[in-house]
Amino acid sequence: MKKNSAPKLVIVGSIGIDTIETPREKHVEILGGSVSYACAAASFFVKTGMVGVVGTDFPPEHRALWEKMGIDLSGLQTEKGKTFRWSGVYEENMDNRRTLLTELNVFESFSPKLPEAYCDAPYLFLGNIAPELQLRVLEQVRAPEFVLIDTMDLWINIAHKKLVEVVSKCDMLTLNESEARLFTGQHSLMDASKALLAMGPQFVLIKKGQSGSMLFSKNGLFLLHAFPLADFKDPTGAGDTFAGGLMGALAESGGTDEKAIRRAMVYGSVAAAFGVEEFSLERLAALDRKQIDARYDMFKSMCRID
Amino acid sequence: MKKNSAPKLVIVGSIGIDTIETPREKHVEILGGSVSYACAAASFFVKTGMVGVVGTDFPPEHRALWEKMGIDLSGLQTEKGKTFRWSGVYEENMDNRRTLLTELNVFESFSPKLPEAYCDAPYLFLGNIAPELQLRVLEQVRAPEFVLIDTMDLWINIAHKKLVEVVSKCDMLTLNESEARLFTGQHSLMDASKALLAMGPQFVLIKKGQSGSMLFSKNGLFLLHAFPLADFKDPTGAGDTFAGGLMGALAESGGTDEKAIRRAMVYGSVAAAFGVEEFSLERLAALDRKQIDARYDMFKSMCRID
Repeated sequence: MKKNSAPKLVIVGSIGIDTIETPREKHVEILGGSVSYACAAASFFVKTGMVGVVGTDFPPEHRALWEKMGIDLSGLQTEKGKTFRWSGVYEENMDNRRTLLTELNVFESFSPKLPEAYCDAPYLFLGNIAPELQLRVLEQVRAPEFVLIDTMDLWINIAHKKLVEVVSKCDMLTLNESEARLFTGQHSLMDASKALLAMGPQFVLIKKGQSGSMLFSKNGLFLLHAFPLADFKDPTGAGDTFAGGLMGALAESGGTDEKAIRRAMVYGSVAAAFGVEEFSLERLAALDRKQIDARYDMFKSMCRID
Repeated sequence: MKKNSAPKLVIVGSIGIDTIETPREKHVEILGGSVSYACAAASFFVKTGMVGVVGTDFPPEHRALWEKMGIDLSGLQTEKGKTFRWSGVYEENMDNRRTLLTELNVFESFSPKLPEAYCDAPYLFLGNIAPELQLRVLEQVRAPEFVLIDTMDLWINIAHKKLVEVVSKCDMLTLNESEARLFTGQHSLMDASKALLAMGPQFVLIKKGQSGSMLFSKNGLFLLHAFPLADFKDPTGAGDTFAGGLMGALAESGGTDEKAIRRAMVYGSVAAAFGVEEFSLERLAALDRKQIDARYDMFKSMCRID
C-alpha cells in the first residue's frame, strides 16, 4: 500500500447485526455497530480506516457496502464464530429504547491490531467499546494529532478507572447528558463539563439528542441546536454517525481548534440527520457529498444571528 | 401626556400574586403574572405600557417596583376585590410543575380598556389571557406594525374558535412544543408549524424550554439553542420574560423582518436566563442594560459558525 493511500482517520468500535423494532417497523438482522455508522459518515470526507471484528457468519454484502462507500477495511478482523448481535425496541415517542438482547460472540475476545498503514493516522476516533480496548488502539497510533473518545454508561459503571485513564490521553470526549452526569456526579451540565475537562481532554462534547449539543473547552462554549427533522425512522447509531461525520470533516479540514470543531459538528449533525431517515446505513449509502454540503449550508443559515 | 412619551410597546396579560415551591425553596405571595414578567423584560429596551388588572389588596411596593423599572402603568386597572392568585409546585428536576391553586378574583370580570396614549403603539404583545380579551385589546390598537400573541393549553381546549380568530389577525404566534401539538393535532413540530402558519401569522415561534426555540416562517427557519444556565432557582415566567424581552428588543430595533426577530430572540433568551436566576422579578429588577448586552454578545459568539 502506498503511503498516500493510508487512512487519514482511523475509527475503532463495535460491529453488530441488529434487530430493531420501532412503533411502526421491525427490521431483523441488519447492519449496525458504532464503527459501521461512524465510518460510513466519515467516508464522505476523508479516507477512513475501520478497526473492528466480525464473525465468519458476517454477510459479504455488508462488507461490499462498506467497500462501495470507500471505507478502508484492512483493519477489519474476521474471527471464527458469530458476529456480535444486538436487539432493541423503541417506545412510542422514540425517546426511550429498551435492549432486548446483547450477544457479544466474537467481540468477547476482540483484541484490536492495527495494520501498519493505520499507525500514522493523524485523526483517531475511539468509538464506544471497552476502555481497555480503546487504550490498546491508542497505543498503536504513533503520533495522532487529534483523538476523540466516546463511551457509555456501562463503562462508566464497570471500568471507571480505566476509562479515566484513556480519557486523560485524548483531546476530546463525547458522551450524552445522562452519561456526563453519571461520570461526574454533577447534575448541572456546566459543572459536569468542568469535571470532565479536569480529567485531561481539551474539549468535551455533550450530546443532547433532539436538544442539540454543547462543546465545552477551557475558555469557550459552543451551542448547536439539533438539526430539525420532519420525520425519522430509526435513531440507532445517530450519536456514532454524528461523531463519525464530525471526525471526518475535522480530518478533511486539517484543523484541531475550536473553530474547526464547530464546523465539523455541523457536518456531524447533518450526517446524523440523514442517517436516522432510514434504518441501518440505507440513507447514508444513498447519499452524495453535494447533498451533505447543501444541508450544511442550510443548517448554518438556520443558526445565523446577524 | 406628550406624544413622544407614548409607549412604543403595549403588553396585556395576567398579574398575579404567586406562591411557588421548588425542591429547595418556597416563596409565598410574590409578584407574578405574564404581563409583569414581560413588561419587566421589555422595559430594558423601550417604553412599555402595561395592560392588566389588580385588586384593591395589591401591595403598593409591587407597583413601585414596576415604576422604578420605567414601566408605564397608565393601562393598569385597579378593581374592587382581590388580585389574581396562583400557586404551584415544581418537581425534583424542575421540568414538571403542578398547579395547586388558581383564584381568578378580579381577573374574572377583567375588561381591558386602553388609555388613548396606548392606541397608537406600533408593537403589541397579547400575553397569555383569554382569546376574547386578547381580541378586545387588539381592536383598540389602531394600526400596530407587529403583534405577537401567546397562548396556553387551557385556551386551546376551551376557546379554540376564538383563539384561531385572534391568531389569524396577528403577525407572530408563540407557544410551547406541547401546545403546538395540541393546537394542531400534529406530532412533528415541522408539521405543526405549517398548520399554525396556515392560520395566518407570518411567524410561529415554538418554545422548547431547555431545548431552545424555533422560529418558523413561510420560507425560513431559525434555530436557537437555549442559553446555558449554571443554575436556576425558579422557571416561573421564563416564557413571558423571553417573549417580553423579544418584543422590547424588536420594538427598539424598529424592525419586523426575520433578521430583526432573530436578534430579538437572542435578547429574549438572555432576559429569560437572567430572570430564572431568582424568584419573581428579583433578578430583572437588579439588572442593567450593560449586563444584558454583555450576555447577548457572549450568547451570539456561542452560536457562531464560521
